[in-house]
Amino acid sequence: MINLVKANGTDEVKLIETLRTRSGETGREVSARVSEIIETIRTGGDKALLDYTLKFDKIIPDPLQVPQHQIDQAVQAADPVFLQALKNAAENIRRFHQKQLQHGFTVTNEDGVLMGQKVRGLHRVGLYVPGGTAFYPSSVLMNAIPAAIAGVKDIVMVTPPSKNGGVNPDILVAAYVAGITKIFLVGGAQAVAALAFGTETIPKVDKIVGPGNIYVATAKRLLYGIVDIDMVAGPSEILVIADESANPSYLAADMLSQAEHDVLASAILITNSQRIADATLKELQKQTAEAPRRDIIEKSLADYSAIIVCDDMNRAVELANELAPEHLEVMTENPTEYLGRLENAGSIFLGRYSPEPLGDYYAGPNHVLPTSGTARFFSPLSVDSFLKRTSFICYTEKALQAAKDDIVCIAEREGLYAHANSIKVRFPSQN
Amino acid sequence: MINLVKANGTDEVKLIETLRTRSGETGREVSARVSEIIETIRTGGDKALLDYTLKFDKIIPDPLQVPQHQIDQAVQAADPVFLQALKNAAENIRRFHQKQLQHGFTVTNEDGVLMGQKVRGLHRVGLYVPGGTAFYPSSVLMNAIPAAIAGVKDIVMVTPPSKNGGVNPDILVAAYVAGITKIFLVGGAQAVAALAFGTETIPKVDKIVGPGNIYVATAKRLLYGIVDIDMVAGPSEILVIADESANPSYLAADMLSQAEHDVLASAILITNSQRIADATLKELQKQTAEAPRRDIIEKSLADYSAIIVCDDMNRAVELANELAPEHLEVMTENPTEYLGRLENAGSIFLGRYSPEPLGDYYAGPNHVLPTSGTARFFSPLSVDSFLKRTSFICYTEKALQAAKDDIVCIAEREGLYAHANSIKVRFPSQN
Repeated sequence: MINLVKANGTDEVKLIETLRTRSGETGREVSARVSEIIETIRTGGDKALLDYTLKFDKIIPDPLQVPQHQIDQAVQAADPVFLQALKNAAENIRRFHQKQLQHGFTVTNEDGVLMGQKVRGLHRVGLYVPGGTAFYPSSVLMNAIPAAIAGVKDIVMVTPPSKNGGVNPDILVAAYVAGITKIFLVGGAQAVAALAFGTETIPKVDKIVGPGNIYVATAKRLLYGIVDIDMVAGPSEILVIADESANPSYLAADMLSQAEHDVLASAILITNSQRIADATLKELQKQTAEAPRRDIIEKSLADYSAIIVCDDMNRAVELANELAPEHLEVMTENPTEYLGRLENAGSIFLGRYSPEPLGDYYAGPNHVLPTSGTARFFSPLSVDSFLKRTSFICYTEKALQAAKDDIVCIAEREGLYAHANSIKVRFPSQN
Repeated sequence: MINLVKANGTDEVKLIETLRTRSGETGREVSARVSEIIETIRTGGDKALLDYTLKFDKIIPDPLQVPQHQIDQAVQAADPVFLQALKNAAENIRRFHQKQLQHGFTVTNEDGVLMGQKVRGLHRVGLYVPGGTAFYPSSVLMNAIPAAIAGVKDIVMVTPPSKNGGVNPDILVAAYVAGITKIFLVGGAQAVAALAFGTETIPKVDKIVGPGNIYVATAKRLLYGIVDIDMVAGPSEILVIADESANPSYLAADMLSQAEHDVLASAILITNSQRIADATLKELQKQTAEAPRRDIIEKSLADYSAIIVCDDMNRAVELANELAPEHLEVMTENPTEYLGRLENAGSIFLGRYSPEPLGDYYAGPNHVLPTSGTARFFSPLSVDSFLKRTSFICYTEKALQAAKDDIVCIAEREGLYAHANSIKVRFPSQN
């Protein structure tokens, strides 16, 4: 049901290479279809948007924007336990992300120079929310809350209409908890294009975030540069490193929590204990048999998962840094001791009471994380993802006078004489 | 020689639309050729890299890596005035960028929870440096210094060999001032691909930065995701907003300093004063006639530049925010008063003694800036561009116990039962 590998310096490396290849590239055909949709929306605006909505969603919602009273109704009708759970999660997410907020700075000197960096929130952000079973209320919180903390004034949510032209009330409840009031019932590549260019109804945004199917992801990728986008996420993945002290039942449960996402998901255990490896395998079998989503789990475990037994935990750390996993659990006796040596991971879960789903929903750090080894250079979604910076320079005559000869020297060395002249022209008597 | 527009709510908007369209898309042919080079390097390593070097650069440097004594010789032979100017610039750049360095944080609570965010520098970064006349020593400083401050341990420079297989000594001097010791004489798309995948000689990097021609830029774009890249920059641009108090000779000189970059560059003046507009036009004519790079200037002024006269400075600010220029000069009586209202710009230059080339070379803020209106959502290159973040969560039994019901509720609402189970399995007596 799952690959079992004894690390020997070769087999585990080969396995890691295989796991790396799973992120599928966008087919040319999808790119071509999405390009056409984008171009049609760019020139056609609302009319094109409604045409596509009728074509793909089989209905045109009227009105396109969800009225406030409908949001209020959904909140009043919500299961109070669910509503409170979301509010508690939102509070934790807010508290953690507030620590990420950065501010600008100013530099001055005796010559009267004033310089610095302004930091401010993006003006308007679009949040894509998938329809149907692909909708996760937790994703609404994880995307919208950092944007709000960054100071984004206007968050525009788009989500495809349901078959009757309405909307899943849970989406409205999640939007309410996240503080979103502007919701349009459009979806697919056409909704992404509408956010990028703006239409008569849909406001033009500066950045588009949120998960979506291959058409949504391709539209975001193609529109990158016209707007900013978040990362295009690959399939989910977890790496657990565990020593003799770990509980195999917990290890298996945590691996399954990723394996159930989809058939491309990956769950890997690296341990220095053959006993833990064997016991976890048994637990995986037992728990998979009882799992409601066992069809998905069986496939992702067989195709993209593994238990690797290595000689010592140093090798486990090396492999973790090589894999740069989205989620990394450290199930060892002294888990915090590993924190300084783990170089590459989206989010690290330390110890037996930090299962990965705690981070998916609740603890506070973001669950939008770099996948497919990109934690080597990408970071989790954060308040920073919704900030922009501008530098500013205000020199005095005295300060420019002091800098003059150096600037002219470098500019002329670069052959950029008009650059040099813009300095010289300010000190005509000295040339 | 330059468009003159009286703002009437229509003409200036149309003009701005035209300027927006100049950023050329990569031709399919270039993409196809670069894709082939990338794939050949990925599978062929050093042998492929040397084959391409011989094909495109007509020579294979031996050794491929510049020896340290050659760097030392170039520094000893350098014009001491130029060397000192670069050192002074580097010191200013260092001092400004040090203010950008961010640190991680930790959150704790009474239930024993420990959470936080680690921030650290990328492990290894590649810096592309163009050869020939496209080489700018200032770019080496602007790219390498923020990386070093971020804590990047290993900066690898690549630059195409000159005709005799050597290297421009100014490149070595700039590398020395920036603290770079690892320089390989390879260029083009093949050098970018070598950095992304690693070869026997070229180390694999996490991010590739630096300017380059269309092949280099296309390779970076195609490899984005395998490695991180900096922005793919469009043509350079300056917007000057000026009132009656401005000096037309300075305005013209600053506009020309951008116009000389290349024929796609853009220089725009927006003023509420017809007198300033007329006087600046005259100065542009006079200074262009005397400019060594006047062939380029005449073309960029005619094609992508403008003087716009508007009714008041509020409209000038509106248009500046709409244009979101790479460089924005504020040549008004009280320039700092505008800082709070200018929403979108890469870098803002305030007052008559802050000409744009001061920022290109010397003051300290970075000169790698978002172009083509992307300052709406992108930021200047910074220390942050070379940092990665990892969040971590360490919960206690007590804390997870308190969170348990909320997490299970949300997970089950999302239909992710194995997620819920990873919590439940830790509290078996309570299910």
